Amino acid sequence: MSNYCIGVDIGGTTVKLGLFTVEGELLDKWEIVTRTENNGEFIIDDISSSILAKLEEKQIDVKEVVGAGMGVPGPVLENGQVTRCVNLGWYDKRPGDELAALVGFPVKVGNDANVATLGEAWKGGAKGFSNVVMLTLGTGVGGGVIIDGKMIAGNRGLAGELGHLTVNLDETESCKCGNKGCLEQYASATGVVRVAKKLMRANGAVKTVRGYWKEFDAAKLIKINETKGLTCKDVYDLAKEGDPLAKEVTEILGRYLGLVLSEMTLMTDPDIFIIGGGVSRAGEFLINSIQYYYDKFLSISKKRAEVRLAELGNDAGIYGAAKLTLN
Amino acid sequence: MSNYCIGVDIGGTTVKLGLFTVEGELLDKWEIVTRTENNGEFIIDDISSSILAKLEEKQIDVKEVVGAGMGVPGPVLENGQVTRCVNLGWYDKRPGDELAALVGFPVKVGNDANVATLGEAWKGGAKGFSNVVMLTLGTGVGGGVIIDGKMIAGNRGLAGELGHLTVNLDETESCKCGNKGCLEQYASATGVVRVAKKLMRANGAVKTVRGYWKEFDAAKLIKINETKGLTCKDVYDLAKEGDPLAKEVTEILGRYLGLVLSEMTLMTDPDIFIIGGGVSRAGEFLINSIQYYYDKFLSISKKRAEVRLAELGNDAGIYGAAKLTLN
Repeated sequence: MSNYCIGVDIGGTTVKLGLFTVEGELLDKWEIVTRTENNGEFIIDDISSSILAKLEEKQIDVKEVVGAGMGVPGPVLENGQVTRCVNLGWYDKRPGDELAALVGFPVKVGNDANVATLGEAWKGGAKGFSNVVMLTLGTGVGGGVIIDGKMIAGNRGLAGELGHLTVNLDETESCKCGNKGCLEQYASATGVVRVAKKLMRANGAVKTVRGYWKEFDAAKLIKINETKGLTCKDVYDLAKEGDPLAKEVTEILGRYLGLVLSEMTLMTDPDIFIIGGGVSRAGEFLINSIQYYYDKFLSISKKRAEVRLAELGNDAGIYGAAKLTLN
Repeated sequence: MSNYCIGVDIGGTTVKLGLFTVEGELLDKWEIVTRTENNGEFIIDDISSSILAKLEEKQIDVKEVVGAGMGVPGPVLENGQVTRCVNLGWYDKRPGDELAALVGFPVKVGNDANVATLGEAWKGGAKGFSNVVMLTLGTGVGGGVIIDGKMIAGNRGLAGELGHLTVNLDETESCKCGNKGCLEQYASATGVVRVAKKLMRANGAVKTVRGYWKEFDAAKLIKINETKGLTCKDVYDLAKEGDPLAKEVTEILGRYLGLVLSEMTLMTDPDIFIIGGGVSRAGEFLINSIQYYYDKFLSISKKRAEVRLAELGNDAGIYGAAKLTLN
């Protein structure tokens, strides 16, 4: 009888693994180092050995495992093909087939942010919903789209790459993708600090998000930056205390995220939005600023999707990967 | 044996009807007047009588009909409920169930723009593709989203309402939805004329889409406008002849549509985009301007979806409605 499934979340420095019951109970989780040398050629072997050792430790027969799922930090086609995964050094690879051949049970693969969305929809903030969009605001901005309970990869594996949505046509600085004005430039942890520093450097009054001009006092933020280096958390902490410059930065982020939520609603109209990643630790303060602009940009409808915080934190990836095998 | 299906496309002034084989051959098409009086209470009766008369004329037994589909000009929930259709006077109605009770075969209902997309995917410009986004640039801007061959209605029936995507955060004029900067304000036939007239009124140099400042000579357009009233077709005809002001208007449209295509690609990554509606008569000239900006905003990927013109014209709605019954 098949009672277990395994979730694997491959990151650039560590691989997270989880052993689950098919009902979604997390029985054990552990990590191994991601060996990226030689174009990441040892990664699949390492994962296979680690899984087989864990099954032996738990005295679980391979026949009792329905399968494993893997989240990969790059675009993955519907058929499981990874065309290009810079962080791991993988090009035109089918990691799922490779792992399946080693462990003896089926393996499915998805983009890590898509897979995390599936995790939140299975056991996290979007539990019970079948049309879910998640935005992960971390060092970068990732996303995932689930429609009718199914993770959408898209024709070129680009579905859910929400960090590179153009939100500001007037931006002069380039995103690392080459475009100017990507969501990631404002809504990632790095982006929040970038926007804050830009305002800190401003000479005189700047045009605020709400449309009026204002000269901000940057003294507090400059002091923090000189003492220990400014972080995204500092900006949100100061904004919550009412510092006008920090508040403007969080308002800029809220506006662009509200814009993106309105766009997703007019495109696929999901049941619920989930906000995760490090920046989401700002909590309800963040959600409120997003909600304000989401409402504003969606004046066509009085009804709109709920916006909730993610609940599974760093475990979303292993949950979602495990769920991949059950679909 | 069930060999036939019927497509119904309800507009504010006429109802278009089509009799099809289940393979998608259009055997006959006709129109009746849309009687919107008394909150549109006669519309379903009229459609039923018209269908039954046509079947009798063609000597087709009701048992030979798989079903009928209806496209409705407003949001339609997945279960076929129309919450609010201003043009027909319908509120909280289940027109599909009502028609089915009268004709004796199943009836499915969808939003008209979504249904037209299904038509183009079945027998038009997107034939053979299962992930399709269509933009209809008419008096307003409508859209439809098909994923895995299925029309997406969304939680509140808002999926595909692409005309109300916010594309310009700096717009000062309001869209009829109450928001400012909706796609419809630039990419509808009305929007093209609006933007042209705004440029015609400009005093001195204006900032162009490409970023430089330019003073446009509005003489040609002003003359046309004073003689017979400026139309969208005039603007495109002049742009094709090289008139700088008219070209700038079409460039603004191309930029915002390119932006929306890049957004859809990063959200659901469709196989193909279809551009229809009256404005699309501008042909390849229009497609080229969209393509330029689509490429620009999608620098994250070298591969992108093809952008094609719609092929079924005003028949897309009846084709798609007929296809609804076969899904």
